[in-house]
Amino acid sequence: MVKVGLIGAGAMGATHARTLETAVRGAELVAVSDIDTARAAAVAGTGRIHNDAQALIADPDVDAVLIASSAETHEEHVLACLEAGKPVLCEKPLATTVEGCRRIVEAEAARDRRLVQVGFMRRYDHGYLELKRLLDGGAIGTPLLVHCAHRNADIPLPFTTEQAITDSVVHEVDIVRWLLEQEITAVSVLAGRASRHAPDGVRDPQVVLLETSGGVLVDVESFLRAQYGYDIRCEVVGEEGTLELPAPAAPPIRSDGRHSRAVAPGFEVRFAQAYRDELQAWVDGMRLGRATGPTAWDGYVAGAVTEACLRALDSGERLAVRLARRA
Amino acid sequence: MVKVGLIGAGAMGATHARTLETAVRGAELVAVSDIDTARAAAVAGTGRIHNDAQALIADPDVDAVLIASSAETHEEHVLACLEAGKPVLCEKPLATTVEGCRRIVEAEAARDRRLVQVGFMRRYDHGYLELKRLLDGGAIGTPLLVHCAHRNADIPLPFTTEQAITDSVVHEVDIVRWLLEQEITAVSVLAGRASRHAPDGVRDPQVVLLETSGGVLVDVESFLRAQYGYDIRCEVVGEEGTLELPAPAAPPIRSDGRHSRAVAPGFEVRFAQAYRDELQAWVDGMRLGRATGPTAWDGYVAGAVTEACLRALDSGERLAVRLARRA
Amino acid sequence: MVKVGLIGAGAMGATHARTLETAVRGAELVAVSDIDTARAAAVAGTGRIHNDAQALIADPDVDAVLIASSAETHEEHVLACLEAGKPVLCEKPLATTVEGCRRIVEAEAARDRRLVQVGFMRRYDHGYLELKRLLDGGAIGTPLLVHCAHRNADIPLPFTTEQAITDSVVHEVDIVRWLLEQEITAVSVLAGRASRHAPDGVRDPQVVLLETSGGVLVDVESFLRAQYGYDIRCEVVGEEGTLELPAPAAPPIRSDGRHSRAVAPGFEVRFAQAYRDELQAWVDGMRLGRATGPTAWDGYVAGAVTEACLRALDSGERLAVRLARRA
Amino acid sequence: MVKVGLIGAGAMGATHARTLETAVRGAELVAVSDIDTARAAAVAGTGRIHNDAQALIADPDVDAVLIASSAETHEEHVLACLEAGKPVLCEKPLATTVEGCRRIVEAEAARDRRLVQVGFMRRYDHGYLELKRLLDGGAIGTPLLVHCAHRNADIPLPFTTEQAITDSVVHEVDIVRWLLEQEITAVSVLAGRASRHAPDGVRDPQVVLLETSGGVLVDVESFLRAQYGYDIRCEVVGEEGTLELPAPAAPPIRSDGRHSRAVAPGFEVRFAQAYRDELQAWVDGMRLGRATGPTAWDGYVAGAVTEACLRALDSGERLAVRLARRA
Repeated sequence: MVKVGLIGAGAMGATHARTLETAVRGAELVAVSDIDTARAAAVAGTGRIHNDAQALIADPDVDAVLIASSAETHEEHVLACLEAGKPVLCEKPLATTVEGCRRIVEAEAARDRRLVQVGFMRRYDHGYLELKRLLDGGAIGTPLLVHCAHRNADIPLPFTTEQAITDSVVHEVDIVRWLLEQEITAVSVLAGRASRHAPDGVRDPQVVLLETSGGVLVDVESFLRAQYGYDIRCEVVGEEGTLELPAPAAPPIRSDGRHSRAVAPGFEVRFAQAYRDELQAWVDGMRLGRATGPTAWDGYVAGAVTEACLRALDSGERLAVRLARRA
Repeated sequence: MVKVGLIGAGAMGATHARTLETAVRGAELVAVSDIDTARAAAVAGTGRIHNDAQALIADPDVDAVLIASSAETHEEHVLACLEAGKPVLCEKPLATTVEGCRRIVEAEAARDRRLVQVGFMRRYDHGYLELKRLLDGGAIGTPLLVHCAHRNADIPLPFTTEQAITDSVVHEVDIVRWLLEQEITAVSVLAGRASRHAPDGVRDPQVVLLETSGGVLVDVESFLRAQYGYDIRCEVVGEEGTLELPAPAAPPIRSDGRHSRAVAPGFEVRFAQAYRDELQAWVDGMRLGRATGPTAWDGYVAGAVTEACLRALDSGERLAVRLARRA
Repeated sequence: MVKVGLIGAGAMGATHARTLETAVRGAELVAVSDIDTARAAAVAGTGRIHNDAQALIADPDVDAVLIASSAETHEEHVLACLEAGKPVLCEKPLATTVEGCRRIVEAEAARDRRLVQVGFMRRYDHGYLELKRLLDGGAIGTPLLVHCAHRNADIPLPFTTEQAITDSVVHEVDIVRWLLEQEITAVSVLAGRASRHAPDGVRDPQVVLLETSGGVLVDVESFLRAQYGYDIRCEVVGEEGTLELPAPAAPPIRSDGRHSRAVAPGFEVRFAQAYRDELQAWVDGMRLGRATGPTAWDGYVAGAVTEACLRALDSGERLAVRLARRA
Repeated sequence: MVKVGLIGAGAMGATHARTLETAVRGAELVAVSDIDTARAAAVAGTGRIHNDAQALIADPDVDAVLIASSAETHEEHVLACLEAGKPVLCEKPLATTVEGCRRIVEAEAARDRRLVQVGFMRRYDHGYLELKRLLDGGAIGTPLLVHCAHRNADIPLPFTTEQAITDSVVHEVDIVRWLLEQEITAVSVLAGRASRHAPDGVRDPQVVLLETSGGVLVDVESFLRAQYGYDIRCEVVGEEGTLELPAPAAPPIRSDGRHSRAVAPGFEVRFAQAYRDELQAWVDGMRLGRATGPTAWDGYVAGAVTEACLRALDSGERLAVRLARRA
């Protein structure tokens, strides 16, 4: 039984706690920390409450750490886990700066084994897995283009143009690298007319263009206030055909003159099974002693690409992405 | 230029008149008759008005007759056309009794050439044509079952349980014979709970079971007040796979939490192109001197099968269909 | 940790063993019995092997029993579990005779608590659950008709016309009762032309008609050698619209002139998640002391309805279903 | 009866001739000219053959001219039609240079009435018409983005990178202007890895980015050798939802483990009905004395935008589109 400590008891942390306690085999939630102790208590069940994340990490009863606290705290906590030699699953971003991500990559490389996994849960989504399986099996030949859309029904205030990239497009950055097994080498960001639902001065929607080491062009629509639902689209165009991410199954209804099906309201519903499978794979990996899933390096690259996107957004230019040499 | 006379200027007749005048090549509407002269005048354009259908049929300027008057008048008008030696396209039913249909078949057989076409317009629908083409091409092997649904959003009062069979299921009777090129040999009719939208005492929906000479079982849902729209479904199950009638193309909309497309409101919209192509084929056939399309015999068989359905409805029994020997 | 003993290490048993050991939280496979000891050993992992199912049931280290042995053994094993006071999840059928099912219902009723669950896994399928949620929420008003199809790509020899009903249609019998919360009161069975892929003398496909206490008509196509894949269809027609079971999500591919998606090859893939969720719910129920899921009574009714179907098949008649009074 | 003369009896011309003679009401093909007289004779039916396009235009028996000859001849023929005061429907492009298009616009403006229509047939496609109707009706609020794909299965050699823009993307340029009722103000062209099916040195696929006067961003995938079929996609993203061009209806087939439908093999099939409706509308417009459809100005703008795309392709820059002042 892997004893898991959870840092951060907000919405994401609470979801993870519930998943760990009801749907993951071989793990137990033994401790929770949050800046708000009452919030920690609400999700801890029979686990201990720590006032302080560092105390949770140091707790000898904690085998592994799940980080779902606010983004600025990630680097510090991940480094502490590495220091303590404990496996850690950190929600994205791995760190809020490229340098922070690199420090983590280096700290882990200095150790004898892999400990860090980044929370890019889409890699566990059945749809993406099936898409990759078919792509790798040659169903459409060599990929040439990818068209993506990432639409939220809404996100709460305050939010900024930059967040669309660091919180939202970052998922496409990771999934496209994973699907194609290619690096992203250049980025551009375009925005046109903003939706009336966007806060003043916020560019929503945006279109991000990614270019890969293999010459694949990727366009990503990012739309945080698309109103109608949470909708993730991905079509890979290859030399012999195209492959699409399937929409989640939902009962077709015919009523009121329409043939329709529900669109997921948000990412929690859309990716519920992916979150479960991510945690199960993390726990299984620990039990078997072989870490899988997105690495610290993946977290670093995602950070470097999104940072380039932010600069491209500012400058209006197409910018090359420069990565550190991988150790 | 084929000069067409139209009998009946109600909804169906008005639609045919408009189609003839705007979308059919090689035909001209030269005369209209209706019991309501004002109604006739409203659709006649530059054509003559006849008070009396027999006068229209006799009119030397009328080359061919289109019958869209009420069902009880069909037999008389078709027989008069045969008498006059004029090609006639008659809306279904060919006659309101099996004997009436037979009289027409025999009257036509006594002449030297084919003159009668029955208005089973579905045979001209692109979806059905494509389905038949694929079926005939062996896409699913030998057919074994057919599942049909015939749903109207609503139909005006008064209507009866019997009408569902004579006006609605009759289309499936014809299209299944045409698709399979097999005769219907036995019928059963079932009804369960009636919809709250059905008039008192009317069994709506019903399920009609047809058995064919080739051993194919056909189930037909007939639902006159299905509320949500006009929806025609047909799936043929074969030894190697299944084939479905496609839903008409309509733009997918994502809004308000739903991914949807419109369902046609009624048969006029759903089969608009089929009605046009039916008239064009009728006109082309006359110009080329070779009649095609559903024959008087098809009209007779449809009558015989629906009449058996009416008896099966009464008796609750499975009944064999008996057909006259084809001349 | 619920300690589970498994009876039967064939294909279904092996799948359950793997699911228990990799994907279910709170359970452990501690013992396996099979008439073929080597087969038992192959799936037992660290669990004990019993030569004899009765010994497994009696094993004090076994908290609960999962029965996946051949159908004829079910009754004996379930009764032994009841005798031993141990919760049991029994694959369908509960027993091979209606009387056998009744004996189980009565034996359980004589005890102070519910112990028996029947393996109708579809009730745990996300698609059916969502369909029921929408139906219960009034999305289409009162249900009037249900159209079902149950198609296997193929099933191994030998198989009989009867098996299509006892092994295949039985799932529709249960799911329709569960969806509608109505009893089945009458049945008819029709068969037409048999597929060339059916063994000599076997009627495949068949159409089974069910009528419910609420007047709902249900038609079920059963097709064991449909060739193209495993395909389960269900459309509920209500007073205000219709609801359909969604097809499982699969990536759309465009290639070779076609836009397509894969159909599941068999029930193991189609219902993999349902089997997992069934076991998890069974285990969770035991831990919480409240049994949920299909009951012995559900198993009995399924047996009574399929037995009526078999008689209807023989007689060609519509037959009423008679149920014992529920204790 | 409008007497039509056809210039150019290649594939497109032959299709138009057949359509005129079989499916358009109120028109007659009276003359054909082609540099290859035999080819002209093959499509002319009972019409006259002219060796020379100018002779056809001058033919007093020709009321209106349909130009389907090679692109370089369009300007000369259209100007001759204007000179002769005859209505002309010219396949795109209106002329091969922006200046040529302008000369036509000016020559027509100097006359008292409109005579020129450009063959952007998509404006007559039911799918696009329905999409526009819904968009104009406010179904998704103000449009913000448009995603397009224009895929051919294959096109014959020789072909160039430039042709993808002048022959293919030009349709998207026109349809987006028509859909949005906005001008295109800037363009960029990107290309990544070329398909192995592209001729040496040809960039296929490409991605063209269009920006409109209303701030809408439009991305267009152009892929001339997409192999799998002819596929036209268009999704408009608005403030409240999205609208998509429907795929043409085709019977769903389930066979060989797949649920599929055919993709159109080429534009002739995909837009067959649009070509017919385009000709019918052109003929109806002449009979009623009111020209509708894409104007010379639309042809000029399409030319100016594609010319900017060609420069953007060369330079790798985002370029503004400059239009003449509309007279």
